Amino acid sequence: MNEGALNIDGNSVANGWQIPPIARPGDPLSDVDTPALVLDLTAFEDNLEAMQGLVDRHGVALRPHAKAHRCPEISLRQLARGAIGVCCQKVSEIVPFLAAGIRDIHLSNEVVGNDKLDLLARLARHGSITVCVDHAQAAQALSSALVKHQTSMGVLVEVDVGQSRCGVQAPEELIALAQQLQALPQVHFAGIQAYHGGLQHTRGLDERRGAWKEAVALIRRHLDALAHAGIACPVVTGGGTGSAMLDVTSDVFTEIQAGTYAFMDADYGGIDWEAATKFQHSLFLLTTVMSRPTPDRAVLDVGLKSTTAESGMPQVVGFPGVRCVSVNDEHSILDIENGVAAPELGAKIRLIPGHCDPTFNLHDYVVGIRNGYVEAVWPISARGMSR
Amino acid sequence: MNEGALNIDGNSVANGWQIPPIARPGDPLSDVDTPALVLDLTAFEDNLEAMQGLVDRHGVALRPHAKAHRCPEISLRQLARGAIGVCCQKVSEIVPFLAAGIRDIHLSNEVVGNDKLDLLARLARHGSITVCVDHAQAAQALSSALVKHQTSMGVLVEVDVGQSRCGVQAPEELIALAQQLQALPQVHFAGIQAYHGGLQHTRGLDERRGAWKEAVALIRRHLDALAHAGIACPVVTGGGTGSAMLDVTSDVFTEIQAGTYAFMDADYGGIDWEAATKFQHSLFLLTTVMSRPTPDRAVLDVGLKSTTAESGMPQVVGFPGVRCVSVNDEHSILDIENGVAAPELGAKIRLIPGHCDPTFNLHDYVVGIRNGYVEAVWPISARGMSR
Repeated sequence: MNEGALNIDGNSVANGWQIPPIARPGDPLSDVDTPALVLDLTAFEDNLEAMQGLVDRHGVALRPHAKAHRCPEISLRQLARGAIGVCCQKVSEIVPFLAAGIRDIHLSNEVVGNDKLDLLARLARHGSITVCVDHAQAAQALSSALVKHQTSMGVLVEVDVGQSRCGVQAPEELIALAQQLQALPQVHFAGIQAYHGGLQHTRGLDERRGAWKEAVALIRRHLDALAHAGIACPVVTGGGTGSAMLDVTSDVFTEIQAGTYAFMDADYGGIDWEAATKFQHSLFLLTTVMSRPTPDRAVLDVGLKSTTAESGMPQVVGFPGVRCVSVNDEHSILDIENGVAAPELGAKIRLIPGHCDPTFNLHDYVVGIRNGYVEAVWPISARGMSR
Repeated sequence: MNEGALNIDGNSVANGWQIPPIARPGDPLSDVDTPALVLDLTAFEDNLEAMQGLVDRHGVALRPHAKAHRCPEISLRQLARGAIGVCCQKVSEIVPFLAAGIRDIHLSNEVVGNDKLDLLARLARHGSITVCVDHAQAAQALSSALVKHQTSMGVLVEVDVGQSRCGVQAPEELIALAQQLQALPQVHFAGIQAYHGGLQHTRGLDERRGAWKEAVALIRRHLDALAHAGIACPVVTGGGTGSAMLDVTSDVFTEIQAGTYAFMDADYGGIDWEAATKFQHSLFLLTTVMSRPTPDRAVLDVGLKSTTAESGMPQVVGFPGVRCVSVNDEHSILDIENGVAAPELGAKIRLIPGHCDPTFNLHDYVVGIRNGYVEAVWPISARGMSR
């Protein structure tokens, strides 16, 4: 108690000592502190190649969703392989991607509120940014903000194709909004967004294909209505990891918004896949066994502050018969079948997170691993940027 | 696209403009940007008084858990009202609390791994820090780290009193560990931790009282064994928001670790309470209605990156017949009963989060509100500090 006052700045502490970094390039995986989010770079790169190859074979563009990871270093690697740009989901989330030099960004969401529209209009001066609307009032407010900041923007009308979330509900609403956008200053109608999130996670492939066919039929009805009204629709954006193998064959999508394909998670890992398009698990939680109170129980140092549980339990890697049965605030509990090999006190083991998007958002860094060694430590720069 | 390269530093962006702060003292609540975590300071202070009054009346100490909020400004207000210190749950989490001048910290968890033990031993030189063990190997490793860093620490043995998580499983294990701690250098046996997390959330009060009685009987068996072995046990720490009204009457607990009582959440709000000890909801998510696609549906700009859903849906405040039915990554969906008043596009409304601990950890700031105006914006300085 004799070293004087402490001062902290982020993870650093003054007085001649600091909280050590979570990992250092060159370290073996076993030296990474826990809980940590680790990315197997070989599997990650294979996933990028697989998706880019899929869309290239079908002549569709790839605009990967950055909401899945919030890490500009990851987007840069997708762009280097042929992606035409990225999607973001929140206005503030755009900023680190612009700062990383990424200029083609689709904000795949509605933006409501003057503070947010002011920020969006200012950001639009730094890149080629598009945004969604689904309401006349929102289109008017966006146009006013762009006039105020002397900039302009392409706008996509979101169409609800079965997700039952945002979006216009019928072709007549789409036509009215598109015509309003054509008439308003500083905005232009750039196309439609037709994303069906629920469809992505439908377990059975046949069931998924059935829901997908309905969505595509609905998109066609909206495109026909636009054509009939003489309104050009250069972009149809949508699709995702779970439907990409179908989306590329649709003849309606001009670009695919998939995000999770680069990582996979336990939720997506559990749906049926066609052999050609199943992606690899590249994203893991590294965690330490911090208690072994009984032969049938191990407790890990990872909890709800480092992963999420609303999409099911994380999956244990490498220990058959050992499964995660509970995720508390700072602990996860493993149940160990009688007689199987189990990790001992102090062992570091890997989990596949249940849902990658909110898991990335809980970490400041993702640790890139290759052949068992740390190759890179990437900041998750848009972590927490949800405004 | 002509303002040159962007640079960001946290939420700031160079080039003469910045992302505005989420709130400014003096602003009306309606000017707070969303999604935001807001704290009704009057209800918060009432909760602090109520719990401090409860423990004072029974002569038990209060050591509120900082894992619930990770915000030193909140702990300082609990200490100012009579709390004897705080609990933390992770080694790195301690740092901002030490930096804020808080010196009496119980790390209510096991610490395993040399990096973590090194950090803990260094931190122990700055305050009166205690920690838990439940395994001989961990006690030995802790002692070695303290010898290396020339410091010492009081150690509590965690006893599993029904939680089925960490902790020794029988009095003989407790005695063996306590004797080991008495023999090892730089550590001393300081007492036991007997926390039963599952009990806290048991819905019915009678059922909760039944489980609580079993836990207290188990604690007594362990205390009797210590007395029989001639080992003094100055501290018995445990208890929580859901059992505090029982814990203070137990004659076993010397201190109560409750955390959520200061805020309440939808999960704790749903259990049965005795009239004297029910706390108020002081913590809310402020969110904007970003889409009103149909008369029976509203979509909010808050999702899994600003709250959690594993403990149930957030609750809508002020709109009877409007309830949250789904929380997606960046959206929540409200179902609106036919004929009830519902918030319009652009309205800012409040939700009670389902589970306060992981919700705090998703935010960089908590916005303190009094009489409808922003009074303070407190950094959640230990946000993300889970190592």
